[in-house]
This record gives sequence, structure tokens and C-alpha cells, in this order.
Amino acid sequence: MNITITRTSSPKSKPNPEELGFGKYFTDHMFLMNYDREHGWHDARIVPFENLSLSPACAVFHYAQEMFEGLKAYKGANGKNLLFRPQKNIERMSNTNERLCIPPVDPDFALEAIKALVNVDVDWIPEGEGKSLYIRPFIIATDPFLGVHPSATYLFCIILSPVGAYYAEGINPVKIYVEDEYVRAVKGGMGFAKTGGNYAASLRAQQKAEEYGYSQVLWLDGIEHKYVDEVGAMNVFFLIDGELITPKLEGNILPGVTRDSVIELAKSFGVRVSERRLAIAEVFDAARNGKLDEAFGSGTAAVISPIGELNMDGEKVVINGGKIGALSQRLYDTLTGIQWGKVSDPFGWSVTV
Amino acid sequence: MNITITRTSSPKSKPNPEELGFGKYFTDHMFLMNYDREHGWHDARIVPFENLSLSPACAVFHYAQEMFEGLKAYKGANGKNLLFRPQKNIERMSNTNERLCIPPVDPDFALEAIKALVNVDVDWIPEGEGKSLYIRPFIIATDPFLGVHPSATYLFCIILSPVGAYYAEGINPVKIYVEDEYVRAVKGGMGFAKTGGNYAASLRAQQKAEEYGYSQVLWLDGIEHKYVDEVGAMNVFFLIDGELITPKLEGNILPGVTRDSVIELAKSFGVRVSERRLAIAEVFDAARNGKLDEAFGSGTAAVISPIGELNMDGEKVVINGGKIGALSQRLYDTLTGIQWGKVSDPFGWSVTV
Repeated sequence: MNITITRTSSPKSKPNPEELGFGKYFTDHMFLMNYDREHGWHDARIVPFENLSLSPACAVFHYAQEMFEGLKAYKGANGKNLLFRPQKNIERMSNTNERLCIPPVDPDFALEAIKALVNVDVDWIPEGEGKSLYIRPFIIATDPFLGVHPSATYLFCIILSPVGAYYAEGINPVKIYVEDEYVRAVKGGMGFAKTGGNYAASLRAQQKAEEYGYSQVLWLDGIEHKYVDEVGAMNVFFLIDGELITPKLEGNILPGVTRDSVIELAKSFGVRVSERRLAIAEVFDAARNGKLDEAFGSGTAAVISPIGELNMDGEKVVINGGKIGALSQRLYDTLTGIQWGKVSDPFGWSVTV
Repeated sequence: MNITITRTSSPKSKPNPEELGFGKYFTDHMFLMNYDREHGWHDARIVPFENLSLSPACAVFHYAQEMFEGLKAYKGANGKNLLFRPQKNIERMSNTNERLCIPPVDPDFALEAIKALVNVDVDWIPEGEGKSLYIRPFIIATDPFLGVHPSATYLFCIILSPVGAYYAEGINPVKIYVEDEYVRAVKGGMGFAKTGGNYAASLRAQQKAEEYGYSQVLWLDGIEHKYVDEVGAMNVFFLIDGELITPKLEGNILPGVTRDSVIELAKSFGVRVSERRLAIAEVFDAARNGKLDEAFGSGTAAVISPIGELNMDGEKVVINGGKIGALSQRLYDTLTGIQWGKVSDPFGWSVTV
């Protein structure tokens, strides 16, 4: 399929690179592609960034038939513009689409569309430590019909947002509240899919954690409220007595690209890595016995987000004195080093735009 | 708050009343109201029905922070236009908003807005057996911001759709597939809230049931896959040995307005009604022993939807010979009689527009 390109005649002025934050500013263009049953995915085009015009009856507003992905383009130290394992995001997009009854998008074409859009807005990739261009592909159901049924029409959209360094003032471990009331997702639900409903479900617990003075929620499983699932919108890792443990993929948690990369990288460091069920009681026991050495979230935005404190029902444990641990730091440095093309990439994770 | 009214200068021609279906046609006007932190809910207005113009970065497209309600206006036999228990919908709207971190809407004003819009499009209420004007209030998160956080701005919208008789060809009991893989919602999640994510989660199972030749899914609880939750997007009732049983409200199922009305009405008939956990095994045991007399779903669209057959793992039970039962029929006749103002309304459920 051809991608037609219509360039804006009124480019925006770029935001102050020191005030980018996350997901606030958008570039001059976006990618759009429509789906209907007669034509399949068609009319792939890059057009000026502008509002979408949609019937108020569109299925996405009522039944949240929607999916998204998130990845970044980096201004590489080698002068090239780099993506980090975009095929993994596209693979996950396929799994999300299948769960949400959204028609599949050809993986090769999805990558081509991402690259084409980044190339059109290539001068929006910010330079400087930790800065990148966040890429947000998403699909929404557009049938103007109130029956509860998979939509017959869809819009695939990619937008780009220049984002600042996640740790503009150095890495500060965050305080995490162990949530025992609200549930993000359960096996049989949509937990493994990157779809709006999972995030909608998380908002109330996140708000509650913030009211208690915590940054994020540690989600427990929805069945027994006993096993660790995720932290905020990230996967979670615990280093206990030399074993790096992360919950295994059983359908209720998101298969993070950073999660997968952390596992491969830690193994290459010679660390013993386990994907298994991890009871929150085991985490607290380890902490009481001085064997919980490090804990961190992993995700595209922060890469590695160290956990400095856990609070469960008022019992607080401080991890590694509230400072980032050696393994967390090494993982962060290596992953970001590969992403920005500063260190060698033995896994072949970087893809040139 | 004042509601300003801008009438369309180009009213649409009305659809053929015999081809209305459900949720396909929309009236000439819609109600809109905006929220931001400075002004709260403001700028309440009735305007011509038209597309919404929204940034592709709006939170609703990515994180499904959205809610909706559904109720109907009926052309009453007494010449008045009637709503059925709209306060119950508005009460549920408040609970949904709280779960989704959406700012509350004043209940009295919400009813006023519904009435005002129905009055503007009053000649869109279709006449004739079983026909009504479906009312869809909904709220979407409109912040053009990709951070996962409750939106700071919202749009409250009401649209109207003339709908046909649900049972244009008489009530035909439906065949139901007992779902044992997918989960709609779990305690701690959003199951009690009327929000898109629950419906998105249901699509895949519904599609699977249809592939197997069934109309709807019977949802089991997400924890033990043992207890009955809902049927399709309706609440569910079983008449077993003289006891009318419906799952109790424990946070995972929707507190249906029709459900509540069925309970009150059946009690007034002298039927023993139980809101309790109901194991699917109990249902099948009763069927094997000839004690499962009737089963039906309850909801705004169908009012009462009799279940003629259940299939669990290939074991099929036929209920009441595949025909609607006496209690189901009486509940249907009485409820629709009250809704269309044809029978007395001892509960005071009807509200004049």
C-alpha cells in the first residue's frame, strides 16, 4: 500500500526542549488509515496534525473498542535516528487487536508507516540527554452505531510527541502503595492487551495512592489478591537474594517490551532471572529478612523506575535505603545506552528509521 | 444552569418507522456540556446533531475514560411522553463517574437536560407497538494529553435514537452459551459501572458464541468461574422451584434499572425473589431435575429476554420447551405496560417529560 503525504503549510514552532514533559506536545503531522469491510485497511496517508471529526455515536466513545501502542524514536549518538525493538510493539498490537476484535494490521506495513511518519517529522526528534520522540499508534472503532458489537469500520492513527528526559533531576526511587481493593485486570479479561479499558480501570486506585502520598500502585492479582501483577502502568521486578523475579505472563499482565529486554539483558549479565508467580508476602518476608535488595518498574517511558518504598496496609519497607540499586542502574544505563546508540547492541535491538 | 438551544435549520427526514432497528438513526439535536477545573460543568447547550471535533490525543481514545447511560422515552397511551425511572439511571451515572474519576454531574440537572433534549426532538418519539426513543447520555475525557491520569476536561453529551420494537416478530427465547474462558469484569474492577471497557472486554466472547450458533454469552464470575454473573449485556434471572433468583450486587455486575424493577414487580406478584450467589452447577442440576422453570435476561433494550437453551461445555438444557414462561411473559407485559402508560403504575415509575 502506498502512503500519500500531504505536508502542512503552517508548521508549528517547536516547544522549549527543556519543558517538554510527556505527551503534551504533538508534531506537525499524523498518519491515518481507514478500515471498512469492503476495502480492508485503505487510504494510508500522512496529513497535517489536526482534530478528528467523529460522530458522537461512534463505538469508541461508548464501548471503548480501542487499542494503542507506545514506543520511541531516539536521536542516536551515531547520527542515525533509532527505534527500539519496534517489531515487539507491532507483535503486541496484533495480540491486542485479536482480543478486541479489531481487524489485523500487516506488521511490515505498520513498521513502514511508523518510519514514514517519523521521517516526515524527523526534525521533531529532540536532541539532548534523555529526550526522545514518543510514537503513539492507536486504533479506534468508528461505527456510528449503538449496538454492542465489533465495529465494521476503524481508524488507525499514529501521532508523535517530543518528550523530555524522564529523570530530568536524576533517578529518584518512588514510593509505591500496595493496592488491595481495586483490580486492574484478571485472567480471562484484557490484561495482556494494550487497550483503554485497563487504564480506565486503574485511574481510581492511582488517585487513591496519590492521596496517601504515594506515586504509584502495586497491583495484586484479581483472584486471590495475593500475587504481584504490575506497578502503575509498568511491569515489575524484584531482586531477592540474588534472584531477579518478575511475574510470568499468564494473560493478566502486559507483555512489556522493556520487560522482555530487562530479562534478556539481566541473563546476559549472569543474573538468575525467574518469571514466576510472586506472592506479596514473599516480597515483605524478604524485606524483613534483609533479602529484598532491589525493586523496579520497567516501561517505555521511564525504562527503569526504581522502587524506594512499599506500603501494604500501613507496613512500610524501604528498599536499598531508598536509593537505586546496582543492578537497576546497570540495566538502566545499558538499555538507554542501546536506545541512544551509545553502547554496542549485541541483541540487534536498534532499528534505523 | 441555563440550557441554550440552537435549532437546526435543516431537519433530517425521519427514517421508515418499520426499519428503525436499534441505535442506527439519530435525531436532529444533541445536548452538550463541557467541564474544566476552572468552570466546572458549564456551557450547557442543545445544538444540531453533528460530528465532534477532538484532538487525536484525547484521553478517551487512549485510556477509555468514558461512561454512558441508556434509557428510553415512550409515547404514552395517555398522550403524555414518558420516561421510565430516569432517576435510577442518573444515580448509576454518579456511581460510574466516581469509579472512573469523572467529575459528578448534578442529578437534577442531568434529568432536566434529558427532558429538555427530548422536548426539542419530541416528534422523533416513534409511535406504534414497541417503538421508543432511546436516550444515550455519555461523558468522554477530552484532555489532549498522553499521561495516564484522570482528564482535567470532559464533554457530556446526550444523543437520541428512535428505535424499533425489540421483538418485531414476537418474543423468541434465545440460545445462550456459558462462557468459561473470557471474563467480563471482576470484583474490584469496573463491573458495576457503565463504562466502555466492560463492553470492549465482552466483544470477543460474544463473537465466539455467535460462531458456535448462540445469541449471547452467560458470564460466570471471574474468580472461580463458578457463579452466574450476567447474560450478554443484561442482568439474568432464573426461576427454580418457585424461587426467582438473580445474582446479588457485589461490585462485579451492573445494577440494572430493569433488574431492580423485575425484583420489585415479582415480589408484588407474590413470587419469592432471592438476590444471591447462584452456581451454574445449581442451574444445571435444577434443569436435570425438571426444576428450572424459566430463565431470562433483563435490560433496557429488550426489557425481558427469555432464555430457551443453555449450553455449557457441550451439555445443552432446554428451558420451558424453548418457549417464554408465564412469569417472564407477565413481567414483560406489566413492565412494558407501565412504560407505555397502558396499565396502572403503582410504583410511580413513570416520569412525564
